[in-house]
Amino acid sequence: MDYLEVEGAREYVARLEHGSDWRGQIEAFAAEERIDAAFFMGLGAVQDAELLFYDQDDQEYDAITFDEPFEMTPAIGNISLLDDDPFAHTHVVLSREDGSTVGGHLDTATTFAGELYVREFETTLQREHDEVTDLDLWPL
Amino acid sequence: MDYLEVEGAREYVARLEHGSDWRGQIEAFAAEERIDAAFFMGLGAVQDAELLFYDQDDQEYDAITFDEPFEMTPAIGNISLLDDDPFAHTHVVLSREDGSTVGGHLDTATTFAGELYVREFETTLQREHDEVTDLDLWPL
Amino acid sequence: MDYLEVEGAREYVARLEHGSDWRGQIEAFAAEERIDAAFFMGLGAVQDAELLFYDQDDQEYDAITFDEPFEMTPAIGNISLLDDDPFAHTHVVLSREDGSTVGGHLDTATTFAGELYVREFETTLQREHDEVTDLDLWPL
Repeated sequence: MDYLEVEGAREYVARLEHGSDWRGQIEAFAAEERIDAAFFMGLGAVQDAELLFYDQDDQEYDAITFDEPFEMTPAIGNISLLDDDPFAHTHVVLSREDGSTVGGHLDTATTFAGELYVREFETTLQREHDEVTDLDLWPL
Repeated sequence: MDYLEVEGAREYVARLEHGSDWRGQIEAFAAEERIDAAFFMGLGAVQDAELLFYDQDDQEYDAITFDEPFEMTPAIGNISLLDDDPFAHTHVVLSREDGSTVGGHLDTATTFAGELYVREFETTLQREHDEVTDLDLWPL
Repeated sequence: MDYLEVEGAREYVARLEHGSDWRGQIEAFAAEERIDAAFFMGLGAVQDAELLFYDQDDQEYDAITFDEPFEMTPAIGNISLLDDDPFAHTHVVLSREDGSTVGGHLDTATTFAGELYVREFETTLQREHDEVTDLDLWPL
């Protein structure tokens, strides 16, 4: 695999805002603090969710929408640049009152409550189109 | 979202104790080492589990108990103070022999085996009652 | 629980290689960089997966194979030595197009795409046989 040794930079703990989009507010924070490379982990609860699944044959994302409350257990992701703007690549597992779960690539979700740890790195990660997968990946 | 830049402090790797409560031993460790602010990630297996789901309308936790063995895949959480004692806010996904999963906010679980990474921060995070959600959140 | 305070060492971000085994390439990386102690988190997608579930009564692993594409949401694990070679203890939750999930201890999975953060520690973690669980654990 391709890898890059990085130097740790700033670290943050965050409280996500009730009623706002989970991923959008991470990206707004990244833009405000000019964070070009980071990983994060978080947990909380959301009021709904739109998840994406990448169809590896058709090479496009299919969306599925859930209009119900969930625990977010957990959210794992990273921040890098996509077309010069911060993009928060975020994968989540969500759980219901009976413990049942759904998961996937998070597009949008209305935050009920959320807590996040963000570790920035002293580098810039810029996504570029990858021929094989038709995804935007890091050319490390 | 509200956020706080933090300085990294001590880091730990841990082996959870067979037969003891998963969350309780993280809190005992935090009390012993006087850890007031940290995030952690872990993995392992448990012999049972009581999960909580926060009812966003009724604003109270509903409990669901599972009396069966699970892989813990993974546990993500944080340590902060609640009423001056360390509280380990812990979300988990648990899996069975057939791969099926349940998840939620972990109340208790008897550890079979467990491995943890804890990153402490040079700050004190103290939970306070939040009017909107009726949860105890960080006033960052 | 038993725990060890550790000093942070090198940190990496990585892009997993399309078509290669997820866990195998983490172990090859660890061997190449001589990483004896680390935790990691990651996300991505896989083309198939073989998961293990530890039967706590029989004290042996049962395998279950899935021959279908998944999002990997997320992968959490650690690197330590087992019989002097790097072993990547990896737990995953995998999700399908309808959001449904499976999870467990990852044996093998063909990578579609993957992104990883690895944090190394200034110590050597060597797994040793544990009498109680019949697993290879850290004698911290």
